[in-house]
Amino acid sequence: MTTHTLSTQTQPTQALPTPPDLSDAEPLPVHVDESTTYAAARDRSAVLDGLIDGHAASDPTRFRMLTGDRPTGPLHIGHYLASLRNRVRLQDKGVETFVVIADYQVITDRDSVGAVGDNVRGLVLDYLAAGIDPERTTIFTHSAVPALNQLMLPFLSLVTDAELRRNPTVKDELGATGARPLTGLLLTYPVHQAADILFCHARIVPVGRDQLPHLEQTRAIARRFNSRYAAGQSVFAEPEALLSDVPLLLGLDGAKMSKSRGNVINLSDTADETASRIRSARTDSERSITFEPERRPEIANLLTLAGLLRDEDPVAIADSIGDRGARALKDVVTEAVNETLADHRARRADLARDPAYVTRVLHEGNARANAVAERSLATVRAVMGMAY
Amino acid sequence: MTTHTLSTQTQPTQALPTPPDLSDAEPLPVHVDESTTYAAARDRSAVLDGLIDGHAASDPTRFRMLTGDRPTGPLHIGHYLASLRNRVRLQDKGVETFVVIADYQVITDRDSVGAVGDNVRGLVLDYLAAGIDPERTTIFTHSAVPALNQLMLPFLSLVTDAELRRNPTVKDELGATGARPLTGLLLTYPVHQAADILFCHARIVPVGRDQLPHLEQTRAIARRFNSRYAAGQSVFAEPEALLSDVPLLLGLDGAKMSKSRGNVINLSDTADETASRIRSARTDSERSITFEPERRPEIANLLTLAGLLRDEDPVAIADSIGDRGARALKDVVTEAVNETLADHRARRADLARDPAYVTRVLHEGNARANAVAERSLATVRAVMGMAY
Repeated sequence: MTTHTLSTQTQPTQALPTPPDLSDAEPLPVHVDESTTYAAARDRSAVLDGLIDGHAASDPTRFRMLTGDRPTGPLHIGHYLASLRNRVRLQDKGVETFVVIADYQVITDRDSVGAVGDNVRGLVLDYLAAGIDPERTTIFTHSAVPALNQLMLPFLSLVTDAELRRNPTVKDELGATGARPLTGLLLTYPVHQAADILFCHARIVPVGRDQLPHLEQTRAIARRFNSRYAAGQSVFAEPEALLSDVPLLLGLDGAKMSKSRGNVINLSDTADETASRIRSARTDSERSITFEPERRPEIANLLTLAGLLRDEDPVAIADSIGDRGARALKDVVTEAVNETLADHRARRADLARDPAYVTRVLHEGNARANAVAERSLATVRAVMGMAY
Repeated sequence: MTTHTLSTQTQPTQALPTPPDLSDAEPLPVHVDESTTYAAARDRSAVLDGLIDGHAASDPTRFRMLTGDRPTGPLHIGHYLASLRNRVRLQDKGVETFVVIADYQVITDRDSVGAVGDNVRGLVLDYLAAGIDPERTTIFTHSAVPALNQLMLPFLSLVTDAELRRNPTVKDELGATGARPLTGLLLTYPVHQAADILFCHARIVPVGRDQLPHLEQTRAIARRFNSRYAAGQSVFAEPEALLSDVPLLLGLDGAKMSKSRGNVINLSDTADETASRIRSARTDSERSITFEPERRPEIANLLTLAGLLRDEDPVAIADSIGDRGARALKDVVTEAVNETLADHRARRADLARDPAYVTRVLHEGNARANAVAERSLATVRAVMGMAY
């Protein structure tokens, strides 16, 4: 068993990231497009990717990134491909990253916190196993940072009831019949998210298409705070969306990936569990394997998955399998998953044998997040005239 | 100039109020009536008053009280008669009191915080001048207690959007035409209020009739928290309403008292300013002074004011003035106000010359409130499984 160390463990305050000097913060060098349309956001994301390549290593706070997960269960292959891998890539390019484990968001739409403690520790294991470095990246839990959460109060004064209700997620909930009633926590969810993003002055937020309206709400809150409470001073910069270019993956049954449907491959599954799950995947009865997403969505999904894992064109993978049928395709996918995750799983198992280290990572990250949040809150209170 | 001292100033933690041992908290000895009807609440208030007389001195935490003000401007005679005097009375009976200066509530319904710093200090001056003792009573500002504010997040998960919208204050706002749009902060106002009350485990909240629904929301949050997140353990006791028996006072123009209408007598006004304001009060042309609230509301209001100040029956005051007319009535009221407030105003002026003391009172109070809030939040996080 390896003993994992965090060199900053004894003096957490010395490891604090330096927040950008906001009094003379340089704007990002390219015009910020106000449009929330997907195409515009995708174009801007490509520009951001280029800027990160050119500048992140020399100026990490300029591209400070906020990302995170709800600790509702284990991470699966979809999380790995769409976000986890990308976080590590950006971190390694020099982007200073904050990862929020959004524990209060567990109860936006359910009555119980579930096994939140185990889930939080599971997330940390996957982060570390994937290559997130707790010395460069701040991993923290939402509930451990009171000064961050306090930002919700001034921020709530900057949004209207009508805006909260126009939010697509809220609208879906309001429209759903027979569902549990909409909670105040879900209604105000985009405002907590704004606090998560703005407390650390993040400039970049990796999002999916459906989260663009939430980010737009955060941008509005930043703008309004500056103009209403800070006399136009730029206390908060408007964060920008970094859109994922990973295509949507379905679960093994062709439906949306969902822990509760059991149609996912968890990062913590063994190689045998993975093989067994993929064997049970839904396919069709045609021998010939072809990439036809419209006509054959389940086959196309397995090909997409293999393509992402092997960094190959799914059409080429289909051609290489040819008439060998679904069984051969499943073998290809199983091998690709198990090969890609082999190191991750070995590291994860190793780290799981050192629970004290996981605890230390959380404590360190929370201490750093608290220091940053307390500084931001002090600024907010000062500009609002509430430093008595 | 007197130098004011706070004996606890160097060791604030030693002055912390001991929170009730909630694990075996005794219920209040009388059945808690669930009804929100005014009559029931009034009956229950009378019972509570009796219990306070009998028990508060020996068991102050059992009747711990939360009360407070929005720092939107100076306190006036209405505040003095309806709440300030009562707070001092209860404090002196042994009730352990927390007074929140609700600075974030300033921006529930307006865009600017205004002169919030001056207003906060003005409130502290009036509290101290009125006899609130900062050694026994914890005076704190909402924005200075992050752990209190964090409670809003779990509490928001315990209320539904429909409940928030049923709140009478919110309903009024939604119904108002041409008004500014309803903010998220006003919409969620009863949830902050619940955090203010429950963070210190207050059992008693002095309220007006219109605030009963807010308190009912707090009671529901306490109940739901205990049953949903604490397996029925009593983490939060349900607070009870202590209704004021002071009749509604109108402003000097017969309309609702309002700082912006200028129809009030501020506690900080001089005796001459008071005389001049009362001279301009609206009356009628009948010589004979009679107490007829329906037919002669402005005359009745001045008589009620004099009656409250002199602790006399307004009818008797009317009889003593007889045919001497409105001018004589105004002289009576002016004398009563200036006599009642003479000591208050002298103490206030004296305290105003020692701004460092006011600062110290705020810092002490905030430190105590933070210690209490951090303990409550730690309990909340522990029962919710969020202590990692």
